[in-house]
Amino acid sequence: MTTQEILTAARDAKRTVGVSGTTQRNRALLGMADALDDAANRAAILSANAADLDAARGHISEVMLDRLALNGKRLDGMSQGIREVAALPDPVGAVLRRIERPNGLVIEKTAVPMGVIAIIYESRPNVTSDAAALALKSGNACVLRCGKEAWRTSKAIVDALRQGVTAAGLPAAAVNLIEDTTRASSYALMEAVGYVDLLIPRGGAGLIRACVENAKVPCIQTGTGICHIYVDDTADQDKALDIIENAKASRPSVCNAEEVCLVHKDIAAQFLPKLAQRLGPDRAARGLHPVELRLDPRAAAVIPGTPAGPQDFDTEFLDYILAVGVVDSVEDAVAHIAAHSTGHSDAILSQTPSHIDLFTAAVDSAAVYVNCSTRFTDGGEFGLGCEMGISTQKLHARGPMGLAELCTYKYIIRGDGQIRA
Amino acid sequence: MTTQEILTAARDAKRTVGVSGTTQRNRALLGMADALDDAANRAAILSANAADLDAARGHISEVMLDRLALNGKRLDGMSQGIREVAALPDPVGAVLRRIERPNGLVIEKTAVPMGVIAIIYESRPNVTSDAAALALKSGNACVLRCGKEAWRTSKAIVDALRQGVTAAGLPAAAVNLIEDTTRASSYALMEAVGYVDLLIPRGGAGLIRACVENAKVPCIQTGTGICHIYVDDTADQDKALDIIENAKASRPSVCNAEEVCLVHKDIAAQFLPKLAQRLGPDRAARGLHPVELRLDPRAAAVIPGTPAGPQDFDTEFLDYILAVGVVDSVEDAVAHIAAHSTGHSDAILSQTPSHIDLFTAAVDSAAVYVNCSTRFTDGGEFGLGCEMGISTQKLHARGPMGLAELCTYKYIIRGDGQIRA
Repeated sequence: MTTQEILTAARDAKRTVGVSGTTQRNRALLGMADALDDAANRAAILSANAADLDAARGHISEVMLDRLALNGKRLDGMSQGIREVAALPDPVGAVLRRIERPNGLVIEKTAVPMGVIAIIYESRPNVTSDAAALALKSGNACVLRCGKEAWRTSKAIVDALRQGVTAAGLPAAAVNLIEDTTRASSYALMEAVGYVDLLIPRGGAGLIRACVENAKVPCIQTGTGICHIYVDDTADQDKALDIIENAKASRPSVCNAEEVCLVHKDIAAQFLPKLAQRLGPDRAARGLHPVELRLDPRAAAVIPGTPAGPQDFDTEFLDYILAVGVVDSVEDAVAHIAAHSTGHSDAILSQTPSHIDLFTAAVDSAAVYVNCSTRFTDGGEFGLGCEMGISTQKLHARGPMGLAELCTYKYIIRGDGQIRA
Repeated sequence: MTTQEILTAARDAKRTVGVSGTTQRNRALLGMADALDDAANRAAILSANAADLDAARGHISEVMLDRLALNGKRLDGMSQGIREVAALPDPVGAVLRRIERPNGLVIEKTAVPMGVIAIIYESRPNVTSDAAALALKSGNACVLRCGKEAWRTSKAIVDALRQGVTAAGLPAAAVNLIEDTTRASSYALMEAVGYVDLLIPRGGAGLIRACVENAKVPCIQTGTGICHIYVDDTADQDKALDIIENAKASRPSVCNAEEVCLVHKDIAAQFLPKLAQRLGPDRAARGLHPVELRLDPRAAAVIPGTPAGPQDFDTEFLDYILAVGVVDSVEDAVAHIAAHSTGHSDAILSQTPSHIDLFTAAVDSAAVYVNCSTRFTDGGEFGLGCEMGISTQKLHARGPMGLAELCTYKYIIRGDGQIRA
């Protein structure tokens, strides 16, 4: 099918999905999970995945090949993920606010599905089932556009998922995979006014920028995280070392990892040597990858390390690299963050309430942390049960996007003949 | 000042405004109202308005001239409007959701200002004071870009408003008026990434389309309303006549006015003659402007009237004109609305619960009405106290935008050393 035919089918399907009930949608989700557990489907998916891997080998990195690769355990995780989504409360139909007016009107601000959600992503096969499950749970049809390396795998997964969807009496076009894997189809989704109610790009900075600049449909920007941790003069320094090591090095490739550490000048001479020891020799001694420090001039006056280059305080390293700077005060830290943060997750470590209050009020980021790791910016860690990504924009959704953020609302107003004076 | 200088000043000011307290912002608002009541300021504003009117006469319609014209009573209304906004609850800092996690983290989803809100509008002087008041109340700096016909008036108003702002200790650049009234400044606002946190166009369809297509900053689409009223076979027909006359003719120039009436086939022969009588001869007998009916073939078979042209079911008339069609069922009405509505406000008049349930579930509009007039889609009528416009988009805000919709949120997470496993 052409991209336009798929969009038309999705738009038709959204009406049915949107008015389906909680029970029917949960039945479809459990059917989707069962279909992923089915032996014949598994064989087809693993065979398609082997073909994708064969075609990609030599063209993409080992890390990317590993992301693309499926096995029984990963498939178990995918079907288990769908069952967890099925078990979450239904966001659709929730009355967000109820207003009774003096003239007798009853106004209910009611959560409703967006309609058609399009997701442009890369090569991780689990995104296919995760995104389809989240969209369906929230009453939406979805249009998935994966990277070309993963297309055979995604196709086999979507074929299986649709068995569960149709067995529950919902249209197959509730879950759609774009067949064209050239850039043309991404641009078609960005411009599909009247067909796509929400576009979510999940991928690298280039994809996200292309969507933000070119999308004529509503788009939610996910992702880039240049996350800061500011160590105030009154910080508990032992906890600070644990927090910074966790934020920087527990999983450096993710968007909520720390990229910049700012240290108050009054403790720099005391704290920076401990930080260098913890992230360098101590990690090596534990058999862990050490962290390279990139130092501003004031930090370099205290500890040895690579001098920071002009871009090092504006780079999402996604690696075992940490930019380190010394600041005069919490106000100075806030100003640095205002100039360099991507608005994702930033933290203050401090025991001074007035500094904490200033930091939480003034730092304009989706998640502002006090005395803990930035790594908690995640739908599961926030207790939302799931997420479709981390929004770094301010309209509609900010931070982890759970099921509620995949819905919009409408006002339903019930009267008995009221007219406006 | 150049547009870029104004944007920079607004971005600097947003930090101060964003962390100011409820008391200080309310003091600024009351000072703004006082400044509009001050005799010297009034003289300056009315003199500027006279100059605007002189320059515009002969170039814009009488209706537009009337919109532009100020007098003491209209100025009273503007200062009174600001005082009403000051009296509303502060939306900033509200804890929208509080989550306590098993690891001891306390996550507060907290309402915070957007930052800088830009508003592109036309010639009504009260929009200048209304928009400035709503933005400041919600902790935002604003950048106002009015139509060139109203520039002298807007400048005099902003000069007065800034007296109140600075007297309360807030920066004058909390409220800004763009000086360049060419199209270049509108495009500069649409592209002011990093300066404008939210753009709201308030004006005609051309302006809104230009913003949606060109904006690189987050934009909320307001306005166009092709509003439907569906008269079901079980509708209370006397109430239906009152509701339709109110929705169509009480103020035809506004976006929540009815443009299309759909009538169930089983009552068409009985109801349509009454409708034609009520909107035509009855209104004329009461000295009111009659409504012209544009009829689809099935309606034209029952009553006399103008045959509907190909665009009449897709036109926001904003005039004493109503498109009238006959449909087979509530499903047929829902399908017609899905194909022709702008998603603003649509109503069903019915006594059949199953029809009402289907209509409210399936019609994908910001406001879905049952047995009352569409004219209630308004911040004041909804009990929000005020509004910045009616959103016809689905992301972030839908329907009337009150103070809450001029805020975003951030998650503030308080811990005691927690790191992620």
